[in-house]
Amino acid sequence: MRVTEQSARDPKSPGTVSDLSERDLIARIQQRLPAPPDWVLVGIGDDAAVVVPERNRVEVLSVDCVVDGVHFDRAFVPPDAIGHRALAVNLSDLAAMGATPRLALVSMALPGALPIADFDGIADGLSALAARHATHIIGGNLTRTPGPLSIDITVMGTVKRRQALTRGGARAGDELYVTGSIGGAAEGLHILRSTHHDPRSVIRDPQSALVERYLRPAPRVRVGTLLARNRLASACIDLSDGLAAAARQIAEASAIAVALEADALPIDPAARDALAARQVDPVAEALTEGDDYELLFAVRPRLRRRLEAVLRHADVAVTRIGSCRSGSGATVATTSGAGDAAPLPAGYGHFR
Amino acid sequence: MRVTEQSARDPKSPGTVSDLSERDLIARIQQRLPAPPDWVLVGIGDDAAVVVPERNRVEVLSVDCVVDGVHFDRAFVPPDAIGHRALAVNLSDLAAMGATPRLALVSMALPGALPIADFDGIADGLSALAARHATHIIGGNLTRTPGPLSIDITVMGTVKRRQALTRGGARAGDELYVTGSIGGAAEGLHILRSTHHDPRSVIRDPQSALVERYLRPAPRVRVGTLLARNRLASACIDLSDGLAAAARQIAEASAIAVALEADALPIDPAARDALAARQVDPVAEALTEGDDYELLFAVRPRLRRRLEAVLRHADVAVTRIGSCRSGSGATVATTSGAGDAAPLPAGYGHFR
Repeated sequence: MRVTEQSARDPKSPGTVSDLSERDLIARIQQRLPAPPDWVLVGIGDDAAVVVPERNRVEVLSVDCVVDGVHFDRAFVPPDAIGHRALAVNLSDLAAMGATPRLALVSMALPGALPIADFDGIADGLSALAARHATHIIGGNLTRTPGPLSIDITVMGTVKRRQALTRGGARAGDELYVTGSIGGAAEGLHILRSTHHDPRSVIRDPQSALVERYLRPAPRVRVGTLLARNRLASACIDLSDGLAAAARQIAEASAIAVALEADALPIDPAARDALAARQVDPVAEALTEGDDYELLFAVRPRLRRRLEAVLRHADVAVTRIGSCRSGSGATVATTSGAGDAAPLPAGYGHFR
Repeated sequence: MRVTEQSARDPKSPGTVSDLSERDLIARIQQRLPAPPDWVLVGIGDDAAVVVPERNRVEVLSVDCVVDGVHFDRAFVPPDAIGHRALAVNLSDLAAMGATPRLALVSMALPGALPIADFDGIADGLSALAARHATHIIGGNLTRTPGPLSIDITVMGTVKRRQALTRGGARAGDELYVTGSIGGAAEGLHILRSTHHDPRSVIRDPQSALVERYLRPAPRVRVGTLLARNRLASACIDLSDGLAAAARQIAEASAIAVALEADALPIDPAARDALAARQVDPVAEALTEGDDYELLFAVRPRLRRRLEAVLRHADVAVTRIGSCRSGSGATVATTSGAGDAAPLPAGYGHFR
């Protein structure tokens, strides 16, 4: 993380980030972070960070970016949730690989008019989630932008070499499971969009559980690492782009067909009620909407009991929602094991 | 790197990036990359990349971001130079730590109206520089943005544990050196800004050497690794924010005073002439302007001959420009060893 500028801050008028030096802004992040562990040889403040790799592990690396107006909206997402989500989407990628999070580099592009209180809130959300998953923020970059607020985070996790999960190991006969519930985050976003007022009042609403699912998703790191360590999953992916897209990715990468059972989908009950009231098909919504950050994974049938035993130690339930077959493509059957199977709805056709 | 969308491209009308799927865009990057080395277990196309760490090395990590309108201007920087610079600024950070580049993750935020030809040009510049420094692009992210084009790159390099260079090891008596020449990139930017027309015509100008310094800086990776392996530098930093800022950073991190000699500065001769013609003080410009991506480093006086011998194998000359003293702060003397020393000019006071 670069520290190149002198302080020019008036402590009495915090104002916007354009009133502060980059050094001040970095200090505001640093004061929220725990002391670095001993494997961090050089941390924030030099041209680059220096770390000692973990022995007998391979490294899992991913980068993801959230942009105001594309992946969230500052109008109704409070600052701490912006910071939380920016890291959560990355930790979810590590979870999908079965990796234990280790470190993160945070690169933010800040509009000059961003209130310092909002910057602090983003840092709060980021640092709190990082602490919860023992993820050390070892560096980053801050830049001004004439465009929207955006946050790019690169994460690294570690896993034993033969335990890394990919999308490509499912075989015909494997059973498909999903963690937690689906559809809740999209409905939470719908509530936020339709009320569209001060987020501090929104999150006190009775519908706050759905809103919370959208604002502060819990990356399924515990389940991912349990699946990897116990060699339970033959393939795994997160639902960042929705269940239908995830199922198609596993089918394609594993060269098998995926058949989902509509009746088995663990659709969030509150979301199901809300969708029914708006006369929207809950299954179609649950298949196509993203933002849930649950995991979809395949398990050999003979491992079902072991899966149940191991996941007793998990922090979230899992549900069997389909199976893998020989062939290609991904379908969903409207009644379990009966009726015609329909192809899964398409995802986004164009670059977004 | 996420691959979540189907192709919807009409091969006859390439148009803008909004006409392509994310998968198509990623494929356009991938086709420019060499086959991944065997230490890449999972590359582009899963939730995350998986790599085997290098044995007996520590890892050096850095992220940097370039934003259109802040760090470059699409009006006069051609696409391949945008891609080149986005990676060069990161490789320069690794060079400053003495690290050998290993891998990169590339996250781009693209305006929908970006021509596909420009996207391809950016990928060309990126992949060419990556190949030159054996840096493997193992993953990344593409997102649409309503704001300016921006490119965030995270790089990882490796170095032996006790050979990593930092800003903090200079001692009183050490001599200060800078690689190559300074002031050329800023003058190149000035030429581009004042002509401000089609970059393809600009780079054929007689002043093209200065313009080239700005558009396609050469990160000093070879010098950085030679300094590290031969334990020649007690401190090192790159000049991304200008020589004055770099000198102050070494002074502060090493708790010493830095005294530069104005007459010794290797100011680019063409830049010196151009500045003189505009009645601008070349020394003041060379101290404060950034974009040169040279290295400033400190060397114990007893190592001077060894430095000269080792750097015979370097791809760029180095020049002694000052020394370290006990005390604090950074000054520049207008004539070598004589006259009053003036404090170095301040860098940017506010967040930019």
